[in-house]
Amino acid sequence: MNKYDTIVIGNGPCGISCAIYLKRYGFNPIVVGKDMGALAKAHKVENYYGVMPISGLELANLGIKQAQELGIEVITDEVLSIEFSDGFSVYCKNNIFQTKTIMLALGASRNRVQKAEKFEGCGVSYCATCDGFFYRKKKTAIIGSGEYMAHELEVLKNIIPDLTVFTDGEELAVDVNDIPVITDKIVSFDGDEILKSITTEKATYEISGCFIAKGSASGVTIAKHLGLAVDGNYITVDENMMTNIPGIFAGGDIIGGLLQISKAVSDGAIAATAISKYLKK
Amino acid sequence: MNKYDTIVIGNGPCGISCAIYLKRYGFNPIVVGKDMGALAKAHKVENYYGVMPISGLELANLGIKQAQELGIEVITDEVLSIEFSDGFSVYCKNNIFQTKTIMLALGASRNRVQKAEKFEGCGVSYCATCDGFFYRKKKTAIIGSGEYMAHELEVLKNIIPDLTVFTDGEELAVDVNDIPVITDKIVSFDGDEILKSITTEKATYEISGCFIAKGSASGVTIAKHLGLAVDGNYITVDENMMTNIPGIFAGGDIIGGLLQISKAVSDGAIAATAISKYLKK
Repeated sequence: MNKYDTIVIGNGPCGISCAIYLKRYGFNPIVVGKDMGALAKAHKVENYYGVMPISGLELANLGIKQAQELGIEVITDEVLSIEFSDGFSVYCKNNIFQTKTIMLALGASRNRVQKAEKFEGCGVSYCATCDGFFYRKKKTAIIGSGEYMAHELEVLKNIIPDLTVFTDGEELAVDVNDIPVITDKIVSFDGDEILKSITTEKATYEISGCFIAKGSASGVTIAKHLGLAVDGNYITVDENMMTNIPGIFAGGDIIGGLLQISKAVSDGAIAATAISKYLKK
Repeated sequence: MNKYDTIVIGNGPCGISCAIYLKRYGFNPIVVGKDMGALAKAHKVENYYGVMPISGLELANLGIKQAQELGIEVITDEVLSIEFSDGFSVYCKNNIFQTKTIMLALGASRNRVQKAEKFEGCGVSYCATCDGFFYRKKKTAIIGSGEYMAHELEVLKNIIPDLTVFTDGEELAVDVNDIPVITDKIVSFDGDEILKSITTEKATYEISGCFIAKGSASGVTIAKHLGLAVDGNYITVDENMMTNIPGIFAGGDIIGGLLQISKAVSDGAIAATAISKYLKK
């Protein structure tokens, strides 16, 4: 059984940042990631300090390479369960690890819309703050009906003059003032390589951009299993990113707040500093 | 008189990140920087996610270029005073600006040691968390005598086995356990291109690395002038980076916490999101 100071679960900005700091603090972390997560789906990142416009996938790969070059193991595997045993045992599909501490950096899975999948990054976005600017002169749709949609709409309203809300058959649960609302069920998203239109049961709408905001789904299944305190879909942590269970830390999208690369990277650095103190005790 | 939505004071990671977000949220920020600040003095940055090892100066320049390519004005000028007048008037050496909001991202000036200046980045560092790893196999000195030195020492102890504390003539005010302590006044730092030794009034010590930790000096002069709440050397902000004065925000090293690029960049993004909400009211 392989033993580590810290198992970092998640290979995105938060997890990799945390592992880099831990390694440089003199510890022995390993990063376990299931897939490339939300970042890899971003068509273009241009709001992350010091990095000229780059695709999300490129940035994600760069982060992993950066960690590997510092001598950090980064492996692909899926965590199935975590048990308490003189620290923690982490059971993955292909490995079992023994560790003193755990960093949860799994991201927040977002409610995807199957039919829109082929246009992800080519007209379809899951983040108004990240991508609103790209659509500032385009006819743009936002899909959703609740609080989360209203929150994303608030961001878009200031940037994009031509917006339409599609509730996809759901009842609108929030006030959107003078923004047009289509409540029919969506039948298809169409276009060649990029999104051109949305067709509902009753009509076809020419649309160049579409933001999906159907409520932020939970990424906290493992957390709940472990007995971690959660608030809605997010894990609760203190100012040092420690959860209610000593030795288990969390950061990035899974703890909520601004769902941005910069904040995830910072969470990772702050958590590593706290983990370093915890390990020295 | 030039009018802006936000004047960002400081052109480092926090200020530039904030300006990039504001611009992409649809606002009109300007960045005013006096010089390149602490980042530009870092010999090498290798703990910032997604950026392969790079000099601090290169990264600082890259950030400014990134902002400029988004159409953000970044100018060199020194802020002399700020006055309240239908928003704020910002008086600089060469310009007067009118703005609705202000973002303070001036960094924390660190207590430099004149004699060590020529080896900055070549054996002399001001940040244990940033650079400790580079000296892990070297005979290393830490200069200081108080709480801040003890804090930096705690970080180094785990990485570097061969450490000596130099108080430079001051009385040691903290407990450093079994680490050797030299209390003589330092006469000179010597070497050719890189640091080789430190000479005190009584002896010469071969040293390859030296961390300066003589207490973190204040960067909050402007803040105190404005009547901003401060805690020691740091400006007090809420979770949205707003100070006690509505319309004035702060982030990065000037608000304390982890004095790292990642945290400064995240602060900038969070502040911009809050400023955006404030401006829409």
